[in-house]
Amino acid sequence: MIKINKKTLKYISTIEHMSCSELEKNIAAGYTVIPKNNSHKLAKPCAIGKGLATKVNANIGLSKGNSNINDELKKMEIAVKAGTDTVMDLSTGPDLMKALRKIMSECPVPVGTVPVYALACNEKKRIASLKEKDFLRVVEEEAVEGVDFFTIHAGIRMDAVKYISTRPRLINIVSRGGSILAAWMITNGKENPYYTYFDEVLDILKKYNVTLSLGDSLRPGSILDATDKLQIQELVVLGELQKKALSRGVQVMIEGPGHVPLDQIEANVKLEKSICNGAPFYVLGPLVTDAAPGYDHIVSAIGGAIAASHGADYLCYVTPAEHLKLPDIDDVRRGVIASKIAAHAADIVKKVPGAVDRDIEMSKARARRDWKTQFKFAIDPVLPTELRKSSNLGTEDVCTMCSDYCSMKITEETVLAAQDKRGGK
Amino acid sequence: MIKINKKTLKYISTIEHMSCSELEKNIAAGYTVIPKNNSHKLAKPCAIGKGLATKVNANIGLSKGNSNINDELKKMEIAVKAGTDTVMDLSTGPDLMKALRKIMSECPVPVGTVPVYALACNEKKRIASLKEKDFLRVVEEEAVEGVDFFTIHAGIRMDAVKYISTRPRLINIVSRGGSILAAWMITNGKENPYYTYFDEVLDILKKYNVTLSLGDSLRPGSILDATDKLQIQELVVLGELQKKALSRGVQVMIEGPGHVPLDQIEANVKLEKSICNGAPFYVLGPLVTDAAPGYDHIVSAIGGAIAASHGADYLCYVTPAEHLKLPDIDDVRRGVIASKIAAHAADIVKKVPGAVDRDIEMSKARARRDWKTQFKFAIDPVLPTELRKSSNLGTEDVCTMCSDYCSMKITEETVLAAQDKRGGK
Repeated sequence: MIKINKKTLKYISTIEHMSCSELEKNIAAGYTVIPKNNSHKLAKPCAIGKGLATKVNANIGLSKGNSNINDELKKMEIAVKAGTDTVMDLSTGPDLMKALRKIMSECPVPVGTVPVYALACNEKKRIASLKEKDFLRVVEEEAVEGVDFFTIHAGIRMDAVKYISTRPRLINIVSRGGSILAAWMITNGKENPYYTYFDEVLDILKKYNVTLSLGDSLRPGSILDATDKLQIQELVVLGELQKKALSRGVQVMIEGPGHVPLDQIEANVKLEKSICNGAPFYVLGPLVTDAAPGYDHIVSAIGGAIAASHGADYLCYVTPAEHLKLPDIDDVRRGVIASKIAAHAADIVKKVPGAVDRDIEMSKARARRDWKTQFKFAIDPVLPTELRKSSNLGTEDVCTMCSDYCSMKITEETVLAAQDKRGGK
Repeated sequence: MIKINKKTLKYISTIEHMSCSELEKNIAAGYTVIPKNNSHKLAKPCAIGKGLATKVNANIGLSKGNSNINDELKKMEIAVKAGTDTVMDLSTGPDLMKALRKIMSECPVPVGTVPVYALACNEKKRIASLKEKDFLRVVEEEAVEGVDFFTIHAGIRMDAVKYISTRPRLINIVSRGGSILAAWMITNGKENPYYTYFDEVLDILKKYNVTLSLGDSLRPGSILDATDKLQIQELVVLGELQKKALSRGVQVMIEGPGHVPLDQIEANVKLEKSICNGAPFYVLGPLVTDAAPGYDHIVSAIGGAIAASHGADYLCYVTPAEHLKLPDIDDVRRGVIASKIAAHAADIVKKVPGAVDRDIEMSKARARRDWKTQFKFAIDPVLPTELRKSSNLGTEDVCTMCSDYCSMKITEETVLAAQDKRGGK
């Protein structure tokens, strides 16, 4: 029922070392998605899910006090160069649609958005006066623009919103989209319009072949709130919605936490796979501590690597600016690289075809102090090349770390040389 | 048989929330060490081992082309400020002893060294002509200086060195000390002097109360070489030596890998605890991929967090300069912070008393956008303070990331406000 363009399928089959028929089987079963709007010409499509390399997403977008579209395009460019597989445009503000069109026209990788942001972007006070049909309208408006996947917060229900008002958590809601829906629901005394009109949402997504990313409005914002009733209750709703969407021929993935202590990550991945019928899991982090602002790219690389090694399919980057400010261009670059490292470390143990080859080539080059080849196989080739250059060693057969006391050289010149002499090599 | 100064024990009991008697029991059993030379006046001693906060070590030291002792003292200062629990002086070169004395006199935390470096530091060619007594002499010479713990590579045996000469690995030896011993052994055709004269080594350590850190000469230098015959064979020897040392009243810890794929880390920790009788495990990394030079502080934060969560006790930092060049002052700072993050993430799930309190306070402050308190509880308070300042928001109740669309504020003003009205709060 889900149709994927043959050329796209072939392209992905080649880069992922997986046959087209296996890809199609996994897409039909809901284990894999290829986020690509029918009308979007895409230089670098990607697949997310079963048996595939772990993917990385970078968020960009305008916000109040930052309305320079060129800055965001630069961030997009740097994120793609650093290896992001997708980009989400999380713009808010009046120029949102202008920014989206510009990003859609220039971005070589799949683009995602959160359509509800368009509703909330002028005046917060307006949220209460929105009509249910407005929530559907923005979905169609952005689908027409060619957006490849949407985060839609259809899983937050009235009982959960009422429960939140009893303050059961350290931090109530940390999802922007989720908070907008909760605010509308409580002030209008009505159920989540994306839940009520889920069939209509699916009709739009199906029409344009937009992939649905079911948002987790109630993801924990503190490790103390992780894996709680609110989070798991919403996950159960998302599992039901996933089943419905898939049966209607819409591709679906599930968004996940968030802030999670290290020893609860595996359980979170297994819960998602079980409750959401093996749908691709798109995690934001997870952040394994709340206490390292300024370094949340490292915190989430720890959690992301563990999550992906247990089966998470897609990592949303977190930048060093998280919890503090909008990321600048360098934050974006560092965020993507940290997530790529986490994804690669996981792909090695997931036995993703080709993943460990990079480490084999790197280690061989390292053993012979072949700097050029090392940099070629590095996840980021730019920084190590610069660092090596800064130590002014040129082609010398050492680095300044151990200089003459290089363990590999000492061993070659003594232990291996002795054997070579004996062996007549 | 192991005697610990009462004042030191009391100090540690307070900061670790563990009774003196339990500490003493664990030290006697070999599960915990307090590295402190009898003659070293130490402002901030620490304990490493069972039920305690995970500790972090920072390496500094002179090398060829970097003979400025003041630079190394500055690195020491910045490492201590960033929260390192110990410092290792890994100096090589002719001024090694001068550097050690300076560091010993100024360092507030325990200091470790690798005495065999002093033997190799003038001319590499001299290694072959060293006598067995030279290996013992340098141990005593540095013990006299007040060094608190020594890495001694007593576990590399002749059969292993001969096996290495058959090239079974991608990278043969990546331990500097290990390669020096292997070179001496193969050129002299003699067993490891630290193994042969282990009783004499223990006599010196016992006399000054220097803690023994049994070095892993054969740690893997590529994830492809991890958990191989060479590594595990050496671990078995280290377990035997640990038992002997403990029975002679010498405190012991075990050094561990190195480069290890994510899914082998838990097994490595469990193996060490089992084979080495529960001795504290001091890991270098582990690095979960070989392919991210320039970012090895992140790579090792992933591995270190996982290792510590499974029971590793002590993380040797890895800086962004690893595999490329000698770290500069900023590399040292970033290396310590990455390791501190890994240690803290693990301490949360190890249920180390007080660890999660930091996250609770941080989350409470985050929920009320209390920036000052957030920075107070941050692992590094300096960087987030600067980042916040750079966004020019002063005491405004937002950050530039979500600005007006702050999920916490939206929820407070709608969902929580509705309940407050109903509840009459």
